[in-house]
Amino acid sequence: MRTAFYISDGTAITAEVFGHALLTLFPAEFEHVTIPFVESIDMAQQVKQRINDRYKTTGAKPLIFQTFVDDNLRHIINSSEGICYDFLNSFVEPIQRELGIAPVPKTHRTHSIHEKTYDFRIDAVNFALANDDGANVKDYDKADVILVGVSRSGKTPTSLYLALQFGIKAANYPFVEEDMDQLKLPAALQRNKSKLFGLTITAERLSQIREQRKSNSRYASLRQCQIELNEVENLYRQQQIPFLNSTHLSIEEISAKIMAITGLKRRKI
Amino acid sequence: MRTAFYISDGTAITAEVFGHALLTLFPAEFEHVTIPFVESIDMAQQVKQRINDRYKTTGAKPLIFQTFVDDNLRHIINSSEGICYDFLNSFVEPIQRELGIAPVPKTHRTHSIHEKTYDFRIDAVNFALANDDGANVKDYDKADVILVGVSRSGKTPTSLYLALQFGIKAANYPFVEEDMDQLKLPAALQRNKSKLFGLTITAERLSQIREQRKSNSRYASLRQCQIELNEVENLYRQQQIPFLNSTHLSIEEISAKIMAITGLKRRKI
Repeated sequence: MRTAFYISDGTAITAEVFGHALLTLFPAEFEHVTIPFVESIDMAQQVKQRINDRYKTTGAKPLIFQTFVDDNLRHIINSSEGICYDFLNSFVEPIQRELGIAPVPKTHRTHSIHEKTYDFRIDAVNFALANDDGANVKDYDKADVILVGVSRSGKTPTSLYLALQFGIKAANYPFVEEDMDQLKLPAALQRNKSKLFGLTITAERLSQIREQRKSNSRYASLRQCQIELNEVENLYRQQQIPFLNSTHLSIEEISAKIMAITGLKRRKI
Repeated sequence: MRTAFYISDGTAITAEVFGHALLTLFPAEFEHVTIPFVESIDMAQQVKQRINDRYKTTGAKPLIFQTFVDDNLRHIINSSEGICYDFLNSFVEPIQRELGIAPVPKTHRTHSIHEKTYDFRIDAVNFALANDDGANVKDYDKADVILVGVSRSGKTPTSLYLALQFGIKAANYPFVEEDMDQLKLPAALQRNKSKLFGLTITAERLSQIREQRKSNSRYASLRQCQIELNEVENLYRQQQIPFLNSTHLSIEEISAKIMAITGLKRRKI
C-alpha cells in the first residue's frame, strides 16, 4: 500500500484537506501519516528520514502533501525520496503576478488563534452548546439562525459545525408533540421567525436513528416518525420556513446548503 | 477590493481551504463569495455571469478557486473573466502518472455522507456531547481520549473538534476543588489513566476567560486561577499525564498536537 504523508510547520490540516481531495479521486487504498508542527531543521531531517525509511521498506515512493511556509524546511522535505506535491508553492507565483503584491510568508497563518475570526468561532461554539435542544430560548435574539425539526433530525451536529467552521451562532429547537398538535410556533420562535431553518428527514431513516437510541419504543416507531414529520413539514409550508431534507446529506453538506439558502455571511475567512 | 470566489459542484469546503491558505499569504483584503452545489450547466452559466458582472463593476478580475469534478461545469467557469486556480486539475495528472492508475471522478466524494468514516464522526460528536464536562463517567471505557483540566481551559471545544475533524471519541472531565485538594485522580479517571490528556493555561488568560462568565467572582480571580492551575499541573506531573498549555493555541492546534503526542489514529481520511 502506498503511503501518503501530510506534513507542515503548522497543524497540517490544510495539507490533509489538499491531499485527501486528490487521493479520493483514485480507486486505491493509502496509508495516511500526518506530521504537524515540523518547525526546526532537526525535525525536518527526522521526517525526511522517516520518508526514506518508508520508501526502503515498501519499495514505493511515498506521496508527500506539504504546506511549509519556511523555505529551508520545505527544501529538506523536497530532498527526500518521496514525491512532493506542494500546492502553495505552485500557486503563489501566479497569484502574486495577478495581484501585483508580494506574499508575506508567516507560519501559523491559518488555523491559529491569530486568525481575525477565531474568537467569533469559539463564541459560536459556546452559543451552540448553551442553546442546544431548546435548552435556552431567551437568547434567540442573539442567534444568526435557529434550526428547528423533530428529535434526531440532525440539528445538534449541524449547529456545532456551523459554529466551528463558519462562526455562525446557531441555536436549535426540537419540535415536541405539543407544538405540533397545534401546528403553531412557540412564542420564542414566532418572535424570531426570520431566523428559522427547518430540517426534515425520511420517516424510515428517522426511525432507524431513533431505534439506536430507544429500541422498540413508540418514539422510534415508523408510524410515530411519519406523524411527526408530516406535522413539521406542514408547519414549514404553512409558516413559509425554508427547510431541507437531511436524509442523504452530511453535516458539511447540510451546513453549506443552509449558508447558501439563507445568505448568512461567514465569520471566517 | 478584489473578490475571491470559491466554487464547486460539492460543498466548496475544499475550495475554501485551498483559496484561504493561499490568500492569507498576501497582505491584502478580499471579498469572499462561496457558491456551493453548482451542479448543472444552467447554474454554472449563472455563476459565470456573476463573475463577469463582478469584473465589470469592480474593474478587477475576480480570483476563482474551484474544485469541480465535472469537466463540462469546470470549462464553463474557466471561460469566465475570472482568473481560475484549479488545484485538482493541476495535480491529478502527476499523481496519476506516479500511481499508474486512472482517476475515477465522482462528485460528492469528500464531505459527504458516503465517506467511509462519516458515521464514526457523527458517533464521536454524540459521544463528546454525552460525555462533556464530567457529565457521564461510566462510558470512559469507550473513549479514545479523556481531556482533563480546570474549568474553562478549552476542553469542550477541543473535544468537539477532535470528534468532527478526526472521528475521535473525546470525553472531558473538569477538575473541581475537591479532586485537587487531594491531588489524586477520581476512580473513573484512574481506571482509564492511559487515556488522559491534560490541558493547562496561564492564570492571567484563565482569569480573563472566567471574568466573561462570572464577573468579579472568586472563581474568576487571578489568585483562585493560580491555585487551581498549580494543583493540576502538579497532578499532571505526579501522575505522568501528558499535557499542554493552550494559552496561545487554537482548538485546531491543540487538537493537532494531541493527535501527534498521543499517536491516536484518525478515523477519517
